[in-house]
Amino acid sequence: MSPEDRSSISYAEAGVDVEAAGRLVSRFARLARGTRRPEVIADVGPFAGLFRLTLAKGESASGGGYRDPVLVASTDSVGTKVKLAALLGRYHGLGHDVVSQNVNDIITTGAEPLFFLDYIGGCGLDDDAKLSIVRGVADACREAGCALLGGETAEMPGVYAPGDLDLVGFVVGVVERDAVIDGSRIGEGDVLLGSPSSGLHTNGYTLVRKVFGVGIGGDPAEERRRLSRRYPGLKGTPSAGSGQALGDELLRPHRCYYNELKTVMPRLKGIAHISGGGIPGNLPRILPEGLGARVDRTAWEVPPIFRLIQEQGSVAEEEMWRVFNMGIGMIVAVSPADAEAVRSALPEAVVVGEVVRGAGERKVICP
Amino acid sequence: MSPEDRSSISYAEAGVDVEAAGRLVSRFARLARGTRRPEVIADVGPFAGLFRLTLAKGESASGGGYRDPVLVASTDSVGTKVKLAALLGRYHGLGHDVVSQNVNDIITTGAEPLFFLDYIGGCGLDDDAKLSIVRGVADACREAGCALLGGETAEMPGVYAPGDLDLVGFVVGVVERDAVIDGSRIGEGDVLLGSPSSGLHTNGYTLVRKVFGVGIGGDPAEERRRLSRRYPGLKGTPSAGSGQALGDELLRPHRCYYNELKTVMPRLKGIAHISGGGIPGNLPRILPEGLGARVDRTAWEVPPIFRLIQEQGSVAEEEMWRVFNMGIGMIVAVSPADAEAVRSALPEAVVVGEVVRGAGERKVICP
Repeated sequence: MSPEDRSSISYAEAGVDVEAAGRLVSRFARLARGTRRPEVIADVGPFAGLFRLTLAKGESASGGGYRDPVLVASTDSVGTKVKLAALLGRYHGLGHDVVSQNVNDIITTGAEPLFFLDYIGGCGLDDDAKLSIVRGVADACREAGCALLGGETAEMPGVYAPGDLDLVGFVVGVVERDAVIDGSRIGEGDVLLGSPSSGLHTNGYTLVRKVFGVGIGGDPAEERRRLSRRYPGLKGTPSAGSGQALGDELLRPHRCYYNELKTVMPRLKGIAHISGGGIPGNLPRILPEGLGARVDRTAWEVPPIFRLIQEQGSVAEEEMWRVFNMGIGMIVAVSPADAEAVRSALPEAVVVGEVVRGAGERKVICP
Repeated sequence: MSPEDRSSISYAEAGVDVEAAGRLVSRFARLARGTRRPEVIADVGPFAGLFRLTLAKGESASGGGYRDPVLVASTDSVGTKVKLAALLGRYHGLGHDVVSQNVNDIITTGAEPLFFLDYIGGCGLDDDAKLSIVRGVADACREAGCALLGGETAEMPGVYAPGDLDLVGFVVGVVERDAVIDGSRIGEGDVLLGSPSSGLHTNGYTLVRKVFGVGIGGDPAEERRRLSRRYPGLKGTPSAGSGQALGDELLRPHRCYYNELKTVMPRLKGIAHISGGGIPGNLPRILPEGLGARVDRTAWEVPPIFRLIQEQGSVAEEEMWRVFNMGIGMIVAVSPADAEAVRSALPEAVVVGEVVRGAGERKVICP
């Protein structure tokens, strides 16, 4: 390398240090290695990740290979939950969030997650923060049995303010063609079972930030103080005798439903991931034409965090249901004959309603 | 929906309009439909995109199906090129950028692109801007023969300043296991052919913005004036008699190399996509241990835009080569016996160097 003119602009001085980024990438690669499945051919890079799809020998699906594989893919970010994580310097949970958000989307088709890629865009995030995120991503991938196949970290001064970031994920799964779950077999009288959410998951944070005045660009010390406040109604853990801190509640990672649902997949006629839009925005998406859902909102107790948000922000009841999951993260539709078997496989699940004829515009009816 | 308390906070008031977003999604779905391949099972959504992988009947690969498919995936954004596009309100090219950046990464393995997903994170971007981006993505997908299988648009006030955005892409391709190109067969004396870039592609924009004082948060009118300045040396199009405007040059879309390379894939021993890190940062990534590359930088003319950047910013020569592609967007390694056949299939390609023994730390040698 020739000696550089001291008055010249280098890329590092402009805010992008290519070499430091390279060192970090090799640490990411080590984390990815811990998620490897036998199908992964190369480590992260050089330009792409490689994953060998296992096919069935001959016509039978026995032996674990796929006969007629359908690839299922999704992308999403964790929304503005990143603002709260950055404020408290707690990044590990975001890794779980971004994996769960995407894995929960693809398993609605009956798919098995195969591999995941993450993208971190940001400005001035330190290496520890990036490593925490990727460690969380790798941990969550391992739990869901999918390989962390690659990822990208982009330093983007001018697009993000210092310390800000966006965290985006991308997952690919596979499902046998004749096992695709698409809701088309759902019929009148089918039972709707709901599995509890672990909290807000990754939706509604722009509203929550406004309600509590956190992560909105105010004085960081004051915003942190607000997040550390304990509310008596919030009891997330047994140790939270005097109430859970708001920040702990809001940063609890998005729950991944793959491990509990995979054993009962063949019995499920439809699966709705309750993310942005809540139950009224997501449940109708799996219902065939002419059918609606009658949901009994008293069938489960709405967790205290949602009532706290509602009180603090004077948020209208219907708005709450349109924005938040209100305590139910996943809803599955099963025939009445299968309901008990599925419910015993999902011990925390409750009957939240049933499929009804008609319903017109408002496909989710709440008595 | 019950009447809302006027003093309550709604999600739309907090900056996220779920219903308007829903209307936009159906317009995105129409654009995606124009990229559909027979393998695509569902339209965009409800929760994920489905793509049926075509397998060979029996043991032979004839008939177009895959016998032993390896999935190849990549994710990347277009970097801070978004700042210049936003400044000029010209978004369509960004769609091409994000597709080409990712497709060029996966075809380095010999893969055929199958499907793509896009993610737009931002704040206050109007619908026309988002539609322009997705239209560009769909056009570029169609050109590369891959399906736009899904995507996500996230409104994130507080993470992005109004008008700012990040554009991230994810692509999945497939290659027959025994056709994977990984550079391992590259040997001493192999010929390196380089295909011209169309400009900066998607790298080096943070440096460029600093050099020209554009997209750095200054007075927008003044920044636009700087981008509209014509430089006599820049001759991008025949009509640019008095020189191309800087903004036109900087926004020219990233070139996609799939259509030209696919016909010669079986003859290629290694493919390096020259993106961030330039030739010295990317070419070594495909070379086996103990081999280096001797690159003759006089073998092609470095396009005027790079010399203009260098002059205006007093950027050191080596720094230019480490940050920018300097006119070569893709380098392939072929045996000397194949060089002429490959070069005639890639009429714009030039011999940029050869593979040499040794080279140690500095794997790219420039005489």
